[in-house]
Amino acid sequence: MSIQLKAISIAVALGMVATAAVAVTQEPITPIQPVKNINLAQVELGKKLYFDPRLSKSGFISCNSCHNLSMGGTDNLKTSIGDHWQQGPINSPTVLNSSLNVAQFWDGRAADLKEQAGGPIANPGEMGFTHELAVDVLKSIPEYVVEFKQVFGTDAINIDEVTQAIAEFEKTLVTPNSRFDQYLLGDKDAINATELAGYTLFKSSGCVACHNGEAVGGNSFQKMGLVEPYKSTNAAEGLSAVTGKDADRFKFKVPTLRNVEMTYPYFHDGEAKTLTEAVDVMGRLQLGKKYTEEENAQIVAFLKTLTGDQPAFQLPILPPSTDNTPAPKPFE
Amino acid sequence: MSIQLKAISIAVALGMVATAAVAVTQEPITPIQPVKNINLAQVELGKKLYFDPRLSKSGFISCNSCHNLSMGGTDNLKTSIGDHWQQGPINSPTVLNSSLNVAQFWDGRAADLKEQAGGPIANPGEMGFTHELAVDVLKSIPEYVVEFKQVFGTDAINIDEVTQAIAEFEKTLVTPNSRFDQYLLGDKDAINATELAGYTLFKSSGCVACHNGEAVGGNSFQKMGLVEPYKSTNAAEGLSAVTGKDADRFKFKVPTLRNVEMTYPYFHDGEAKTLTEAVDVMGRLQLGKKYTEEENAQIVAFLKTLTGDQPAFQLPILPPSTDNTPAPKPFE
Repeated sequence: MSIQLKAISIAVALGMVATAAVAVTQEPITPIQPVKNINLAQVELGKKLYFDPRLSKSGFISCNSCHNLSMGGTDNLKTSIGDHWQQGPINSPTVLNSSLNVAQFWDGRAADLKEQAGGPIANPGEMGFTHELAVDVLKSIPEYVVEFKQVFGTDAINIDEVTQAIAEFEKTLVTPNSRFDQYLLGDKDAINATELAGYTLFKSSGCVACHNGEAVGGNSFQKMGLVEPYKSTNAAEGLSAVTGKDADRFKFKVPTLRNVEMTYPYFHDGEAKTLTEAVDVMGRLQLGKKYTEEENAQIVAFLKTLTGDQPAFQLPILPPSTDNTPAPKPFE
Repeated sequence: MSIQLKAISIAVALGMVATAAVAVTQEPITPIQPVKNINLAQVELGKKLYFDPRLSKSGFISCNSCHNLSMGGTDNLKTSIGDHWQQGPINSPTVLNSSLNVAQFWDGRAADLKEQAGGPIANPGEMGFTHELAVDVLKSIPEYVVEFKQVFGTDAINIDEVTQAIAEFEKTLVTPNSRFDQYLLGDKDAINATELAGYTLFKSSGCVACHNGEAVGGNSFQKMGLVEPYKSTNAAEGLSAVTGKDADRFKFKVPTLRNVEMTYPYFHDGEAKTLTEAVDVMGRLQLGKKYTEEENAQIVAFLKTLTGDQPAFQLPILPPSTDNTPAPKPFE
């Protein structure tokens, strides 16, 4: 190829890239970006910890119990089951794409995944343990001691390292390559006419005001019941529990809609069993709009195009406890 | 190579194989055989079902909850946690190599893995569901309907197919390639002098009378407390519950010792926390022999060479429920 032809080819290539980039940035939803700057050793350690029920008092509940990676990173229950079968106060949000959230938990009380990861371990209603006891368990297992040393370079295992590793693993749990992202990236045939109509309506009727960006949500707190109040028997009041401000009552973190087909039931109280119901309630209470049956179905069809590649990895094998490992106490 | 030389080479090769085969058959423990005659489509379906908590009333408990493949196919609890956190009556045996068992459950009440698989689903103290309701859940999920049709060739999903698929998956859960099997297959350096001393003692003091064959157990029922009675607060009476014969009281299926390092705690009541304790109790109660500390340690060292390759597969992704799927009832 001549230098001239090469230059033209490069220009054309650049031109195409630029066009695609413009097309993407014009949309309120952007494709999920590949994960970067990952510490793979931390990921592998964090994956084990994520699946290890020995971080709970009972030895039965792991992160994966309520954020099940076989099921969209949720437990698909209205509210979760904790230690001794306690009923959780709120719906377990998905761990998928949670690295894209502005903060963690429905009320945003944890700044990031690392801070979040320590919460359930020590919550008496969830894993029912303490950070100290969880660390004691890990310290008693030689394979963990070696792996922590390899990963963090120190002999001591502490909760800071535990939550750092879990958070690093969780950062890998993004779900690229949904049909909708394929559409955004230029494959106009990746979604059908009904799904496109749903997306158009999703934009024109205002859903994108809150559900936008890479995660289609997760980046702001909004009042649940904006136009009409939301009636719930659930006691959660959202952001006000963190800020103490009355103006923040019933403001919850807008959930991501990525993989929403898999993350039922919906809302912080898990009261909406189906996407149809969730779309109807959102339309009426947040937008003052009653969608027709056809409109609702179009939006639901669009939402189902947001299911991306699910996490793909081998089930981790956990290092066995030793004679010195404190035994779990499931029935105390 | 000349024909003559080739013939000699082949003869030598055959000779070596024959010698190795003789060496193997002389030992009371035999290497785990590779899995054969597997229906891969059933395995893939069964793997999903094994991990699917929607086969339980609560939507929270799957086969993998108590037979956790990250943890030696057990829950590593004394007795298991069932629906509503009920305390199970008996220790969960490992699912690893369970296809080699003469029968399933500690009392042998299920003839095979297929019959076993239906038990926990419908046990009110375990998954707390019914076969009919479990099948109703699966029928409501189009991906399952398609997969069952592909695997079994019929439109109807029934419990027979469900348990068949789970059993087929479980048949793949053998753990070849332990250091001890490498030793049996001819690599004399695969175990060290202490481990070999432990194996020699394991044979000479009579452990192999019951713990023999491919699974190092699992192939007979024996009385727990043969020389001295076994004292337990556990109500289980073993085989007599199945046969009705008084002579079968306290006869339990001899557990496999494959991967025993991972399947703590030990015995049907889970009362032995460590291998050291288990070896001591077995020696005294079954063989009338009090092992010295050194002997005990040697046998424990040998037992740890029985850990084989753990199941290696991608965490299955479960098809999502639909609007028509009956919701789980964790708190009713």
